[in-house]
Order: sequence, then structure tokens, then C-alpha cells
Amino acid sequence: MKFLVKKEDIFNGIRLVANVAAMKSLQPVLANILIETVNDNALRLTATDFDLTISTTVEAQIENEGKITLPAKKLNDIVSRLADKLITFELNNETNSVNIKCENAKFDIIGISASEFPNVLDINLVDENSIDIDIKPFTKAIKQASFAAANFETNNLLSGVVCDINENTLEMASTDGNRLARVRENISNLEKKSSQLIIPSKTTNEFLKMSALVNDQSVKIYTDKTKLILKTEKSMMISRIMEGQYPKYNQLIPKENPKVAVINKNKLVSALELVSIMVNEKTSIVKFEFTEDKLTLRGDTPDSGASEETLNVDYKNEDMIIAFNYKYVIEGLKNMDNDEVKIEMNTNLSPTVFRPNSDEDYISLIMPVQMR
Amino acid sequence: MKFLVKKEDIFNGIRLVANVAAMKSLQPVLANILIETVNDNALRLTATDFDLTISTTVEAQIENEGKITLPAKKLNDIVSRLADKLITFELNNETNSVNIKCENAKFDIIGISASEFPNVLDINLVDENSIDIDIKPFTKAIKQASFAAANFETNNLLSGVVCDINENTLEMASTDGNRLARVRENISNLEKKSSQLIIPSKTTNEFLKMSALVNDQSVKIYTDKTKLILKTEKSMMISRIMEGQYPKYNQLIPKENPKVAVINKNKLVSALELVSIMVNEKTSIVKFEFTEDKLTLRGDTPDSGASEETLNVDYKNEDMIIAFNYKYVIEGLKNMDNDEVKIEMNTNLSPTVFRPNSDEDYISLIMPVQMR
Repeated sequence: MKFLVKKEDIFNGIRLVANVAAMKSLQPVLANILIETVNDNALRLTATDFDLTISTTVEAQIENEGKITLPAKKLNDIVSRLADKLITFELNNETNSVNIKCENAKFDIIGISASEFPNVLDINLVDENSIDIDIKPFTKAIKQASFAAANFETNNLLSGVVCDINENTLEMASTDGNRLARVRENISNLEKKSSQLIIPSKTTNEFLKMSALVNDQSVKIYTDKTKLILKTEKSMMISRIMEGQYPKYNQLIPKENPKVAVINKNKLVSALELVSIMVNEKTSIVKFEFTEDKLTLRGDTPDSGASEETLNVDYKNEDMIIAFNYKYVIEGLKNMDNDEVKIEMNTNLSPTVFRPNSDEDYISLIMPVQMR
Repeated sequence: MKFLVKKEDIFNGIRLVANVAAMKSLQPVLANILIETVNDNALRLTATDFDLTISTTVEAQIENEGKITLPAKKLNDIVSRLADKLITFELNNETNSVNIKCENAKFDIIGISASEFPNVLDINLVDENSIDIDIKPFTKAIKQASFAAANFETNNLLSGVVCDINENTLEMASTDGNRLARVRENISNLEKKSSQLIIPSKTTNEFLKMSALVNDQSVKIYTDKTKLILKTEKSMMISRIMEGQYPKYNQLIPKENPKVAVINKNKLVSALELVSIMVNEKTSIVKFEFTEDKLTLRGDTPDSGASEETLNVDYKNEDMIIAFNYKYVIEGLKNMDNDEVKIEMNTNLSPTVFRPNSDEDYISLIMPVQMR
């Protein structure tokens, strides 16, 4: 194998796949990136941890075809520091060592034979079952809907993000039992196909990183029973799908909460960050005291002291005291684009909805904490 | 105690002293900052870990005099997040709790009585024994001369920085046995006093942070047998001095090394960073191969591969191979202002001098590593 490639091109490719290469794996080859020539003008980079595989095509001048796997971290370190010029890669088939040359710099990097790399790209893409979707709303929905997923062991369904694609809406949601995020987007570009899947949150996180590195307008979604494939022009993610029945979360969302406050989002975030200096680190509870057009936030700790801040808000209902884990509130607010947030409450024990004070269909639902 | 203070003023004061407050100490009061009113218009903030004490004066409107200690970290968190307005501090003497108010925010923070704070400011400043010195060259010398100090336990003399003040030169140096940094600065503003001291490197590090936060032109240095006092108009550091005989490091510096190479400093640093991707992490050895007007740097590892980069240099002596811990070389170079570095060598086992190719009197001396 011998090829010449622009530094920028291969560096982008490596960045796209390198996250998936598992640093600590029983199989050393999983810490490596598979590099293979595809045709005279392209090579493919692939990394996998079995649950998730990312592969991307990179433009290159291929002089001799071939394939090898190289350690992802070392390869990334080397390429990132090379000059912005043409880089030559040349494999010594006897030693599995690749010679990398760029200007006056030269590396010999020892790889592992490509035959040891798992055969993860052997999938069958059936175009009739695919859905084309605009990458922008899809990425936005993933970002807004995935932060509430549980941090449990990877086989718990609540650690996944549920994704419902219908005729012209995309609904995504996650919940860890204490809070829930749900977003609905209108999508065009859609053939009349529908699909529901539970995506591991590792996959949604990696997709967010990938979407920041590609220029594509749309992404093609393929599914079969056990796998989700997300494909752009040059790149592809193959992910395990989680199997099972995701909780019927839409039933948890109150149809109407009678008490409504409207607040400047950034001021609320700042006030929560200030007041939270004096909260119990284990419980993270901040009390929200609503009176007419005022919201007072209060924190207190057993040993260090107490805090409070008062904000002007739009609130006309009866006085109310309700307590939340402030971290959940902040996370929900930070995923909101709008400047104003609407808080919809019922009693101080019922699920409370935080949503943008706009048409956007995004909600962050949080269970209040019982006060003693 | 009650006072009003500008956020900016007290925040700068807290930043100046807070580093010294020990987070994990057997005495909880050492994690606190002592706040005391000095007169109608000023308060003093002090923190100490016994080895090092920093104190600073902050302008304020004092309404009632008094003193208290407050936890450094909480106080810093609170003040940093308050609006850029007047802040009111009011002590409740019965509870040792301080009420902090700023705009719509309010805190009650529980302190520890000032009577428990050690009496670290009780020192006798004798002006006749003091030396006035420009803060700029002093700070520069500290920065350039202190990085080579050993990371040993704090009582080892080599963990200190030796400081020699003579009629019109300041010499500072540190060495850990494998390398040495020495700088000489001409200083004006100097009465004809001289002094040699060994300063703990924690003190030099904190002085660098302090000098970045003060606006003073000069610093007054007071010493007695066991203490060093560095005083600017509003701030003061009191440090332990290390006692003992510092090694006669100037004898280690070769008078003349016959083989001389001149190299662009930034190119050498970049090349070392590139080549070091492929070095044994335990030994960090990079080989320097000098031939006529060329320097080839080489790294290699037992398992991952090898690296090399060739640089154009000015070198006319006989060919030479010499090896260094590349981290020492980079640290020495990064503390150099000049664009070009002069490397002065003798044999590949003799101490090698890296110095700016200019008049500046700074050297980084490094012992080569024996090659197998």
C-alpha cells in the first residue's frame, strides 16, 4: 500500500473516526484505525468498538492498493502536528510498519494486520427502507432531546434516546425517570415512511461530533432489526439499536398546567448558578418561591450558609413554593434557543414543564423535589 | 463589622490571597481568608499556610470595624458571580455569620472567629535592611530561573530557587541535578546592599501570580534569618526562607564549549514536539544528530515505531550525536525570549548550554543522556 494525501483531508477523516477506537480493549486492534484503499482516488478509514462503527472516505492519490490498521491515538498525534502539505504513507507488508513522510519529517509506525480487524462494514443497505432527512433539524433534535438520558449501564433502555420518525414530524425524547426532554421538529425531504427506534446515547453523542465535521445537507437513515445506519455522502455510522418497549413518556406530560410564569432564560440560569453556591452538594436543591411578578430562588446548606436571589418575572397566579434539582433546570434551559422560558406548574409535587416561550416544540419536564 | 466595597476591588484582593488558603488542612481556619477593617477606608485580606502568607489591602467604606474569617473558596465563588456593583458585608458577631448583599442577591456565609486565625502578620519590617527592586526584571528573572527546581519534598534545598542580589545585578538559579537554569539581570534602583537567599519554589510561583495582579513599579525585599518579605504598595508576601548551603552551581557551567549550533527556537520546539510522539515515555530521550548545517532529531520506542525530523541550522564543527530528555530542552527554550537559540556542546556526555543567541544572560544547562 502506498498513497499520497493532503494533511487536511486525512486529518479530518481521522478526527471523524478516532473517538470510537477503544483505548482500553481486550483486543488491541480495536484501538486502531483500519486504513484501506478503495479505488485510485480514495481510501477509507474505519474504527469500531463493536457497538458503534464509524467509517469515512478520504480523497487520496493511491499508488499501490492495500490495507493496514494503525493505532488511532499515535496516528492522530502525528498527523495533527505535520505541516499542511502532502503526506506520503507507505506500508512495509513484511513488518506491518507504515512509513509516513511529510516535508523533513519521517515516522515509522507499527500497525496490526488488517486481517485482524473485525468485519464490521459487511452490511446490506436496502434503499427502499431508507429515510432521507435534513441534517440540521435532525442534529438539533438530537442535541435537545438526548441530555436527559440516564447514565446507567448501557443495556438499560433509559440510557437510550427514543426517535420517532413520522410522515412529516420527527420526535425525539429521553428520560431518566426524574426528568424528561422531548422535541418535535417538522421535517421535509421525507418519503412517507415511519420508524421508531431507541438509539444508545453514545451513538447520539458521536453523531453530534460527526455532524459538526461534515458538510452534507442531509443524512440517510437505514434500519434493520438490530442496527441503525446513518449515512452521509462520505461517512457512515453503524450503531446497535436498543431493543424493547420504551416507556410511554408522552403520557407523563401534563396536558395543561394552570400556573404559568415567564422568565428571561439567561437571567434565570445566572441566578441559579449564583444561588447554587450555597446548596447541599448531594441534593442540589434550589427552592423557587413565586409571588406576584417575583421569583425568589433560595439555597441553603447544613454547614456553610444560605443564599437567595430575586428576579422579576411575569406571574399572576397564587403564591407557590416548589423545589427542583437546579442542575436539571439549568441543563434543560441551556438546550433552549429562545430568550424567554415559560414554566408551567400545577402543585409543588406535580411534573413541571419548562418550555421556550415561542412556537418551538421543545419541553424539559422536571419532577419537583419534596420539601421537608 | 460592616462595610461596602466595590466588587472589582474585593474580587482582586480575594484572587491575590486565595491560592494560599489550604483546602485540606488539619486546621479548618487555614482554608479561610481573614477579613479585617484597617481604618475608615480600607480592609485587609490575609491567607496563610504557615510557610507562606499573603496579605493585601482593599479600599472600602467601613461602617463598623471588626474582623472575621470566611472560607476562601465559597467567598471567591460568591464574589466572582456577583454583579459589578457595590457589595455590603455585615457580620453577625453572635453567629460568626456574614450577610453579603449585592443588588437582588443575598448570602449568609458562616465563618470562623478571627481569634482562631494564626498571628502571621506580626513581623518587624526594618527599612534599613530592605532592598528596593524593579518588579519587571525581578519577575522575569523568577520566571526564567525557577522552572528547573526539583519537585522533591519541600525541605530539599534543590526544590528552592537561589537568589543572589548584588550591587547592580540580580542572579537567580535553580537545578534539580539533571539540568540548571540561571539568569542574570542588571538592576537599577538598588542601594548598595546584597543578599543571598534560597526561596521555596511555591513562593516564587505565587509571586508570579501576584505580580500579574498588581500595578506596582517596584517591590521592597526584606529579609531576616528565617523569613523573606516581599512588599508592594498594597500587598505583602511573607515566606519561609530555606536554610543551608546551596550547591555551587556556577562551577558546573562550562566556561567554553567548542561546538556551537544556532537554531530557530520555535522550529526546534515544534520539531521536538513532533518527534517526541515516538519516544519512550519513561525516558523521553530524543537524539540530536549534528552534521554540517543540519540537525536531525530522532525518537524511537520499543513497540510503536520511530520518528525523525531534519532542521537547517548553523553548525560548522565535526559531526556529533548527543541525546537529551526532550522535555528539559523544551522547558528551557520556552523560557527564552529570543528567536534564535545557541547550543554550546563539548562531548556527548558533558553539560550542554542552551542560551539565547543575544546579549541576554540566561542559560539552560542540560546533562546529556548516555546512549546505549
